[in-house]
Amino acid sequence: MSGLFIAFEGGEGAGKSTQAGLLESALRERGYSPQLLREPGSTCLGEYLREYLIAGAPLTPVAELLLFEAARAQLMTEKIAVALDAGAVVIADRFAGSTVAYQGYGHGLDRQQIEWLNDFATGRRYPNLTILLDIDPYIGLGRVQGRQLRLGLLADDKGNRFEGREMVFHQAVRCGFQQIADAGSETWRTIEGNHSIEEVAAQVWDAVAPRLPSLPG
Amino acid sequence: MSGLFIAFEGGEGAGKSTQAGLLESALRERGYSPQLLREPGSTCLGEYLREYLIAGAPLTPVAELLLFEAARAQLMTEKIAVALDAGAVVIADRFAGSTVAYQGYGHGLDRQQIEWLNDFATGRRYPNLTILLDIDPYIGLGRVQGRQLRLGLLADDKGNRFEGREMVFHQAVRCGFQQIADAGSETWRTIEGNHSIEEVAAQVWDAVAPRLPSLPG
Repeated sequence: MSGLFIAFEGGEGAGKSTQAGLLESALRERGYSPQLLREPGSTCLGEYLREYLIAGAPLTPVAELLLFEAARAQLMTEKIAVALDAGAVVIADRFAGSTVAYQGYGHGLDRQQIEWLNDFATGRRYPNLTILLDIDPYIGLGRVQGRQLRLGLLADDKGNRFEGREMVFHQAVRCGFQQIADAGSETWRTIEGNHSIEEVAAQVWDAVAPRLPSLPG
Repeated sequence: MSGLFIAFEGGEGAGKSTQAGLLESALRERGYSPQLLREPGSTCLGEYLREYLIAGAPLTPVAELLLFEAARAQLMTEKIAVALDAGAVVIADRFAGSTVAYQGYGHGLDRQQIEWLNDFATGRRYPNLTILLDIDPYIGLGRVQGRQLRLGLLADDKGNRFEGREMVFHQAVRCGFQQIADAGSETWRTIEGNHSIEEVAAQVWDAVAPRLPSLPG
């Protein structure tokens, strides 16, 4: 018996955590006991590393990549594999795709090496369904700031705390996610993230529902 | 201009830290400015990870391996490469060989995969000289405990806090180090670690001296 492994991917402010939480609630209402996990995190090691990553201490791109993979390896063995083998639904807020998009397309590390590391860390156990919440970084980053930035505002140096390089990085990450989703169309589903929360949630449910395992009992 | 990269390897209690410190002093006396580093450690990330590794929190062998490699990647870029490129002597207390010996021979992870990771983390920059301090784990672990355990004592269950499995692990690590040193005889030098500190230090010096770069100025 194997459960269902769903991951949410996308740039900053795309709505991943919101939609992952809504999907978890929807599944609970229908009698499932899903496990909601975040990456990096959801294990002692993952949360310990998350703290370091967020603190912004000096970190080379290669070291950063290896930290994400260490957190992933621990999460896979300790939580994801256990839950899936028990037939549960696992919802991950980010997974291996983020590493290809951020470290590969964003930081320019070799994508084949990243994929080798993803295989190594996960034991080649990947999501049955990955939902890409695709969003324009101007909108996503604006959400992160708690307000909708407009293109007009961003063109104004005084009003914009995102320098050019940073926006180029986020555009590269978005483009990366789109290419990964295109290449993996059997297991990836792209949903436009700039619609209302309810609208996106409905599309997420449409993607998830046909794949749900039957309820025990 | 490239400096000299020396690593000390060996099991617990083999004398690595002692000999690395003595070598550092000997080099300073002769006018060098060596950089003494420990693994994992010697960077913010390395010390942060070292703390977690020592605390003994739950960790799968793969996650543990990836943490060591993350610390190594950071150390290489931030410290080792910088010092070597400036022509300095770098002394590392453990390096890539420990990962092959402990995670490969000890925990049984695939050694080719470990070597791939070592290459990835170091950018294929390895020590010019690795000194293996070879020691019987019974003696080394006895030193760690602050006393010389004798084989007779270890055969007595009451006096022995090392269970069979653990000693088998340390024996496998020792055997691994010996095989790595044999296979890399051009850059590895094995020194028996059970002699006096002074005797070992003299042998270390004999191995290092012919490889020293000329002093600047």
